[in-house]
Amino acid sequence: MAIVLGHNQYGKAEVRMVHVDRSTPQHVLTDVNVTSQLIGHFEDTHLTGANDKVIATDTQKNTVYALARTGGITTIEEFALRLARNYVGTYEQVTGARMEIEQTFWDRITTAGGPHDHSFVKGSPEVRTTVVRKDGDTESVISGMENVVLLKSTGSEFHGFPDVPYTSLVETDDRIMATSVTARWRYDAGLDLDTAPWDHLYTSVKAVLLEQFATVHSLSLQQTLFSMGRTALELHPEIAEIRLSCPNKHHFLVDLSAWELDNPNVVFYAADRPYGLIEASILRDDAAPAGSAWEGINGFV
Amino acid sequence: MAIVLGHNQYGKAEVRMVHVDRSTPQHVLTDVNVTSQLIGHFEDTHLTGANDKVIATDTQKNTVYALARTGGITTIEEFALRLARNYVGTYEQVTGARMEIEQTFWDRITTAGGPHDHSFVKGSPEVRTTVVRKDGDTESVISGMENVVLLKSTGSEFHGFPDVPYTSLVETDDRIMATSVTARWRYDAGLDLDTAPWDHLYTSVKAVLLEQFATVHSLSLQQTLFSMGRTALELHPEIAEIRLSCPNKHHFLVDLSAWELDNPNVVFYAADRPYGLIEASILRDDAAPAGSAWEGINGFV
Amino acid sequence: MAIVLGHNQYGKAEVRMVHVDRSTPQHVLTDVNVTSQLIGHFEDTHLTGANDKVIATDTQKNTVYALARTGGITTIEEFALRLARNYVGTYEQVTGARMEIEQTFWDRITTAGGPHDHSFVKGSPEVRTTVVRKDGDTESVISGMENVVLLKSTGSEFHGFPDVPYTSLVETDDRIMATSVTARWRYDAGLDLDTAPWDHLYTSVKAVLLEQFATVHSLSLQQTLFSMGRTALELHPEIAEIRLSCPNKHHFLVDLSAWELDNPNVVFYAADRPYGLIEASILRDDAAPAGSAWEGINGFV
Amino acid sequence: MAIVLGHNQYGKAEVRMVHVDRSTPQHVLTDVNVTSQLIGHFEDTHLTGANDKVIATDTQKNTVYALARTGGITTIEEFALRLARNYVGTYEQVTGARMEIEQTFWDRITTAGGPHDHSFVKGSPEVRTTVVRKDGDTESVISGMENVVLLKSTGSEFHGFPDVPYTSLVETDDRIMATSVTARWRYDAGLDLDTAPWDHLYTSVKAVLLEQFATVHSLSLQQTLFSMGRTALELHPEIAEIRLSCPNKHHFLVDLSAWELDNPNVVFYAADRPYGLIEASILRDDAAPAGSAWEGINGFV
Repeated sequence: MAIVLGHNQYGKAEVRMVHVDRSTPQHVLTDVNVTSQLIGHFEDTHLTGANDKVIATDTQKNTVYALARTGGITTIEEFALRLARNYVGTYEQVTGARMEIEQTFWDRITTAGGPHDHSFVKGSPEVRTTVVRKDGDTESVISGMENVVLLKSTGSEFHGFPDVPYTSLVETDDRIMATSVTARWRYDAGLDLDTAPWDHLYTSVKAVLLEQFATVHSLSLQQTLFSMGRTALELHPEIAEIRLSCPNKHHFLVDLSAWELDNPNVVFYAADRPYGLIEASILRDDAAPAGSAWEGINGFV
Repeated sequence: MAIVLGHNQYGKAEVRMVHVDRSTPQHVLTDVNVTSQLIGHFEDTHLTGANDKVIATDTQKNTVYALARTGGITTIEEFALRLARNYVGTYEQVTGARMEIEQTFWDRITTAGGPHDHSFVKGSPEVRTTVVRKDGDTESVISGMENVVLLKSTGSEFHGFPDVPYTSLVETDDRIMATSVTARWRYDAGLDLDTAPWDHLYTSVKAVLLEQFATVHSLSLQQTLFSMGRTALELHPEIAEIRLSCPNKHHFLVDLSAWELDNPNVVFYAADRPYGLIEASILRDDAAPAGSAWEGINGFV
Repeated sequence: MAIVLGHNQYGKAEVRMVHVDRSTPQHVLTDVNVTSQLIGHFEDTHLTGANDKVIATDTQKNTVYALARTGGITTIEEFALRLARNYVGTYEQVTGARMEIEQTFWDRITTAGGPHDHSFVKGSPEVRTTVVRKDGDTESVISGMENVVLLKSTGSEFHGFPDVPYTSLVETDDRIMATSVTARWRYDAGLDLDTAPWDHLYTSVKAVLLEQFATVHSLSLQQTLFSMGRTALELHPEIAEIRLSCPNKHHFLVDLSAWELDNPNVVFYAADRPYGLIEASILRDDAAPAGSAWEGINGFV
Repeated sequence: MAIVLGHNQYGKAEVRMVHVDRSTPQHVLTDVNVTSQLIGHFEDTHLTGANDKVIATDTQKNTVYALARTGGITTIEEFALRLARNYVGTYEQVTGARMEIEQTFWDRITTAGGPHDHSFVKGSPEVRTTVVRKDGDTESVISGMENVVLLKSTGSEFHGFPDVPYTSLVETDDRIMATSVTARWRYDAGLDLDTAPWDHLYTSVKAVLLEQFATVHSLSLQQTLFSMGRTALELHPEIAEIRLSCPNKHHFLVDLSAWELDNPNVVFYAADRPYGLIEASILRDDAAPAGSAWEGINGFV
């Protein structure tokens, strides 16, 4: 029996970068948070502290900036692939890389003269994400969306659950249902990563998820979640699997009956904790195995 | 010499409430965070623990819910005034009240069938605020806006500052300027609080602040901030004073010259801390004294 | 009538600095967060963007580092005074300064060989604070303590409050009482700021506040809070006034009676929001007026 | 090809509970945050919204409270096992369970009369964690420690890394090394889960990790991390594998040379982002496979 070094990776986390495309007077902002991690032959630094193979995390930070300067950031998926390929292609000791990028969005400020060319206001809390994993020649892309908070004020029921011990919840045929969607979808191994229309795919999946949340009459958050994921797969053969993690952000109807006031679903208390938590994977039954693609993605099983 | 109880107030903080107006199929959401505090003859509970004058903070919470049920929430200013007047008008020992409300916003989900009637997505991080202070018959209203993050990618210079000891900053005639605006404006004592068009006033002040940020060519964040405040006062005689607190959210140009790359204001590092902090009051020189209106409002001098 | 610039101040916020005293092998860490702000003749930059009087916020940051290097950080009060005096004494246009410092603490790691000389673990969440305000020759010091979370599992009652409309709270003679203490105390104008034993004063006030919380049998959080403040003043003639802001962090007894389980103050639900909020000033009735000392200190009236 | 439901789980997250052992006048507090999730035959609610198999998340919350009342909370590992076994043993449709518990700590307030019996102050930010996974008869326990922030002010070098493109980092033989340790260790399949000395194991592993951080002269954070993990395994045959995730919390030496000041490792700027991130698994080469034990544990590969 011996004690050994298992899987390991290292890099620079949360490189906050804003790229300004100034090629026309109407500037375009790209605001990202990049985490760069390398995988490879790094036993020495762990076992003896010899660093001759270690691409410094500071160097990884500079690489993020430099590649943004030389090639721009067309989409976070393309940029993450470019970074991963740069590392694995450049350094013999680097056998794999994991690039995680979060993107947030700015709207143009509306002025009397219309949308402004170079002045912006931070938009919705929505975060677009991607995790690119490259292991030798194998590349996987998992894209996603986070912090999209949804609420429907009717069209949601919850009843028929068993009255087992410790059950006190009352059945309802009309409640507020609210959640903050975290979605991650794994692109099919057959997708051409060099030509995939990443922006279109993101926009379309997001629209599908919101449309389903809005229009499905819900009998449980599970049903809504599955419907969201299934529809995304139906419309997008490029996607092999989607995983959703949806807190049930409880809004409790306030009981005012002690003071002879009714409350027909008008006044709600928005609770912080605890919250329900519904998680599921929806996938094609012929999807290729995920391999290492999902490793280290927070909150997903 | 004696040790005495000075100013004191107590109440329930952060009552998170969602009100759903279901009077038509197109529901209207009002999402607020209410802090209710009472001022008055509460020496006994401090000095001896006798609670016969104490309106329990739990009761204040219930009052927030009940008044939302009976009268709705037309605007946060009107609701805060209604709460304050209820307390001061109902309880002899309550001589004053301080109501602070934060409102956040939801957008309708866009579906194939258009904006949805009862399904919503959380919008921008913008927070609309109000602080109503009632001391006997004197009422003041300070409204505001928080968490509005602005950035301009050009049109901002900073130079001409003195080269005193410990100065290393380089002058620039083109930088990113970014801030998260916190604004609070005190309404004039002459404004009729029962008929003021609160929603219009909020929308208009917000638009003015953003327009000025966007269109003023900036020589310093101070100049931009003053211009924002002054213009808001010029357009709104209802306002006696506006205070602005604006962090300078630094975006540093990345130096890539060591690798023979230029960087003509394209790639920036967005720093977290430290940050500049610019604060100012802009007011009419004949404004009535503020009295207690500003007391306890975080981050304003 | 004219629109004018009122009070204004600017500077660099949250300069995160760690100072290592290496004068002996047993290193001493001082970990602070400094916010430096200047007050003075800064109308030009607001009105016209002329910056010839503006000590750049970047320069203020460097000044914080440089004065820590040249004179060390004996206590946060002494360091804040030194910074304020440097600015007001050096620059004609600077008539006042406001220095706010937060200090957090590290413990030595205990090893087999005893407390380690240069290895540390972050200690309790307690934050020691000071706000020094200098206006010309007038100097004030308000020190404080934040984020000290206290709980007593018995010895707290709450009853005798009036049963007014919207009251549903049940009286109790045994509850959990918990709070996160924010305290700020203003030193008396007569204290010699050059010789005050700042560390001793902080340690002593903190000990008094905790001792009172622990040992006073409580009939209301107000009573406990007043007792804490009064005792601090009784023991410390150096202090003119203390202000306390104490959330009532509710711990609700869980009702298990539906399943024939009693719950004699054993199992509690710790709620996040809403929470009670109790605020009070306790002061000497002959205390000198506070002037500008409290301006801009968050959460205090 | 069909679209199917893959792995799914659901439950109640972040049940914040305080348990008071009042069996002697010296009360004992246990403060936990419990996330309860069930795995099993829940296809119906996803596919059709039929909830007859769904143990409501509200019921899971009540179960947490009830089992804390009936059996107390001896250790978080024992309590998590008890919860998981209760669900899997009680409900036919529940084939597995995942219980995650975080525990934080309180110290007794020191009074003139010694440590107080029932008054407490929140201690260090350290969080003790456990994740118990039960799949049918297979049970795994992964315990851990989070939010333990360490710093050494000397005894850390970093040099010998290759000077590849985009490298600008300067080699150093004396730097501050700081991190916030997140550790998770998987207990060996052979450990008797009914008699394991959970508290002793936690205390011992924590002590080992801190001792190694303090006493190993570091040539890289990787070397320190591996040494911490290896020593924990050497001393604890009960542990099959330990995973560590350690941000490199950079403390940059401030360059004051422009003002003719030296800075011999005295004044440092503590940066927020970006930060290095070092992650590794250290394990026995004959460890049994982990199965599902690590699934869904944030931040671990």
